[in-house]
Amino acid sequence: MSQISLTKLVTTHFRAGAMGRSEPEFCFTWNKLITRTASKKVVTLDNLNPNMVKLEYAVRGPLVIRAAAIAKELQQGVKKPFKRVIGANIGDAHAMGQKPITFFRQVLACVTLPELINQGAYPEDVKQRATEILASCGGRSIGAYTQSYGIELIRKHVAEYIERRDGFKANWEDICITAGASSAVKYCLQMFCNRIGGKASGVMLPIPQYPLYSSSLAEFGLSKVDYFLDEDHDWALDLSELERSIKESLKHCCPRAIVVINPGNPTGQVLTRENIEGIIRFAHKHKLFIFADEVYQDNVYAEGSKFFAFKKVLMEMGSPYVEEVELVSFMSASKGYAGECGLRGGWLELVNLDPGVQAHLYKCISAMLCPNIVGQITMDCVAKPPEPGQPSYELWLKEKTAILDSLKKRAKMIADTFNTMKGFKCNVVQGSMYAFPRFELPPKAIAAAQKEGKTPDTFYAFRLLEETGICVISGSGFGQKPGTYHFRTTILPQPELLQEMLDIFQKFHDKFTKDYS
Amino acid sequence: MSQISLTKLVTTHFRAGAMGRSEPEFCFTWNKLITRTASKKVVTLDNLNPNMVKLEYAVRGPLVIRAAAIAKELQQGVKKPFKRVIGANIGDAHAMGQKPITFFRQVLACVTLPELINQGAYPEDVKQRATEILASCGGRSIGAYTQSYGIELIRKHVAEYIERRDGFKANWEDICITAGASSAVKYCLQMFCNRIGGKASGVMLPIPQYPLYSSSLAEFGLSKVDYFLDEDHDWALDLSELERSIKESLKHCCPRAIVVINPGNPTGQVLTRENIEGIIRFAHKHKLFIFADEVYQDNVYAEGSKFFAFKKVLMEMGSPYVEEVELVSFMSASKGYAGECGLRGGWLELVNLDPGVQAHLYKCISAMLCPNIVGQITMDCVAKPPEPGQPSYELWLKEKTAILDSLKKRAKMIADTFNTMKGFKCNVVQGSMYAFPRFELPPKAIAAAQKEGKTPDTFYAFRLLEETGICVISGSGFGQKPGTYHFRTTILPQPELLQEMLDIFQKFHDKFTKDYS
Repeated sequence: MSQISLTKLVTTHFRAGAMGRSEPEFCFTWNKLITRTASKKVVTLDNLNPNMVKLEYAVRGPLVIRAAAIAKELQQGVKKPFKRVIGANIGDAHAMGQKPITFFRQVLACVTLPELINQGAYPEDVKQRATEILASCGGRSIGAYTQSYGIELIRKHVAEYIERRDGFKANWEDICITAGASSAVKYCLQMFCNRIGGKASGVMLPIPQYPLYSSSLAEFGLSKVDYFLDEDHDWALDLSELERSIKESLKHCCPRAIVVINPGNPTGQVLTRENIEGIIRFAHKHKLFIFADEVYQDNVYAEGSKFFAFKKVLMEMGSPYVEEVELVSFMSASKGYAGECGLRGGWLELVNLDPGVQAHLYKCISAMLCPNIVGQITMDCVAKPPEPGQPSYELWLKEKTAILDSLKKRAKMIADTFNTMKGFKCNVVQGSMYAFPRFELPPKAIAAAQKEGKTPDTFYAFRLLEETGICVISGSGFGQKPGTYHFRTTILPQPELLQEMLDIFQKFHDKFTKDYS
Repeated sequence: MSQISLTKLVTTHFRAGAMGRSEPEFCFTWNKLITRTASKKVVTLDNLNPNMVKLEYAVRGPLVIRAAAIAKELQQGVKKPFKRVIGANIGDAHAMGQKPITFFRQVLACVTLPELINQGAYPEDVKQRATEILASCGGRSIGAYTQSYGIELIRKHVAEYIERRDGFKANWEDICITAGASSAVKYCLQMFCNRIGGKASGVMLPIPQYPLYSSSLAEFGLSKVDYFLDEDHDWALDLSELERSIKESLKHCCPRAIVVINPGNPTGQVLTRENIEGIIRFAHKHKLFIFADEVYQDNVYAEGSKFFAFKKVLMEMGSPYVEEVELVSFMSASKGYAGECGLRGGWLELVNLDPGVQAHLYKCISAMLCPNIVGQITMDCVAKPPEPGQPSYELWLKEKTAILDSLKKRAKMIADTFNTMKGFKCNVVQGSMYAFPRFELPPKAIAAAQKEGKTPDTFYAFRLLEETGICVISGSGFGQKPGTYHFRTTILPQPELLQEMLDIFQKFHDKFTKDYS
């Protein structure tokens, strides 16, 4: 039997590094952790699909595995210079103490155990919603498969949400409910998994980006076309950079799509309306399909920042864009104010697709039977929350406002604190759930990192984790301009814990700088 | 905006056929439904990933789309020669009236709305399970992400289940909890998505097979290597047929894996222990990775039939097999006695994988964040149901036994009835949830089908659907020996409805035979 333990794999390698041993093979990417063994197996590292080898996913990579191991060590009584691991590595609001929205969970409990509808002391609108959804389920049970694109009623509620948001008609048949945004993104990327004129299809990605994109491109053998966001201008998207990027890409691939993340992950920027118009014009000019990752559409905090949906801007731009630009927009239950990551709910809206292409896409989605129904119902709550006058409205509004207000405060607090730290520069967190500060590293630290075979930012992040228990993800996992160092931290620890984290961080950074100067 | 409606697409084409018009392009596969339109789009039928075009998935294909449209027409008052659509097309127990297992749903309700643990009048073991699971969740909420391979506690419960089942040690780190078996199968197939010595990797599939496999192979560009099950011997797996099949495949691909579905879908057979030993020897001889689709392991009905897990047989076979044969086994919450299809829960167990290969597979799984947590908790209930002496035990046992006993009766009833029908031959439904009867068609019916551009079995299934409302899937969706005609029906309609369905079926078949003789 195979005796693999990822935790051991990471821990062993980590220890080797921590002890300062020189190991030329030692590097904190997954791929360097996996050592080749002589193997009589049917599937070996020599004949495994090489795209699986190339794939890297930092948000769930060695730093996070090591953090989980440390948490276990603490539980087992191992002594550390800190009491707990603070997981600022992933946008996981509930794990950081955010409470679920009562309306959502009451509806979910009622559909799960329908006797609660009659029994429980739940508000009328909860019972009504649960009843309405069950009536749309086969055998009135959430144990039945749904249509592969999601329950029709929920798709219609999503269309209504989008119409309210944008002021333009949304066609429910162009909307699919999905098991989170990740699977939605992967379904759509598949459309480009073929070579055109002997060249791999290229997908333009912002740098820094959310590594779901880079990992999916690696998995699918698609060509990654980087365009850099402009850190000096609050991570804005510079159109001349897009032109530079696509021009260079033509040497090695056929660019067919562009990904835009708005509000930004990991950068926290919110694109202006003008910026979005420019991107749409660029996509039209170069015949690019637009992936609009809009999962943080409810997470906008900064004064003067406003979320504009790509579809709304496209509609307002009129001819020829409104007829000729194809796009898909993604939404998720994991972000916003709900933060229901574990339930895996999402949706996608397709705009302007060729009907035949859309039918093939739908056919491929149907081969996965259906997205989990609880995730679907969560999206129903996202799309159609209680309305004024309904019994659940006041509580829902109070909970939602408290969460978003608190996130707004934390977004400011985190950027302000990092900007007081020597060698740090952190842009305003206009939206989403992350800060992505830049920091300087003394030459001695860079040399020490090289000695351990790590990138300097990863060396820093591991040192931070081991000495303080704070887990952030180094910038190299997202991409950054060569020679710059960043990390991504979420803004999700609750205010008190966030303050504690920032205090610890400051002390660590002072010590680190001193140690290596 | 695109104005695609799959329902309209199918309905329009169907009407063209039903009116007896001759349409050379008319054929009831998805791909023929989609007509090429002159397109200025970025993504067109000419540059779309061709694997997406090739993919076919009959279980959710045009027959099912048409059935849904008919159900809507009935609701809207359109007159039909029947009152309701009977969906015998998919193993969807709850949609056909099966009730959920109380223990499962009580646990799920309590984790969803934890106040129920203190409030509700639920048994102690329910409350305890919910509390234990919540303690394993980030922030004690099912809204938090879990480990990508599933909650550790649940993986450990699954390992205990497998140990009880097989009498051999199971390593919880080799088990992943997944969002249903479909995604688990696709993760594992990805390992083979590369060419070996210039040839596509080949995967051996039983014919007839469950179309998840053929559709995934098409999607991934893998080569399908058919081996025929022996209908004349209760769909047994004939080893000489495996040898014939692999020998022929060497001309066009590099065979690297073999899929076995036991109990069988759509065939309903249960493999003997000897059969499984033979397959393992065959896989060892030809260096094939085994996919053991064992999602129906609890669905065994026939006298003398018994489920043997591939892993158990492998362990018992000893050297060299026990060290040298790699396999993955799949399980699902959708089948068995729970039938919780909509919740999307599954697991996979990896046996004997190269540690590096397993690490890469785990890394790829981690890029999808985590399987939905409600599906995971459902798998916890599957793996660790109430035990004797616990308060929920009696009710759980009663519900489970009633469901499996009733399925056993229905399995017999359906095969017996088809065997009384002229021109029908139906093997004993030893296990799973399906019958796959063979039937003869008069030459005139075959000619009429050809005129409509349909395969004869699909012509028959569509006629059945339009005239009776019964939806079954024609054999060509699963594969069948050339010149034979089958359909797959589930055994899931509740006994009374099943009797009604079989009565209607008989009358239809008599009329159909008369019409075309």
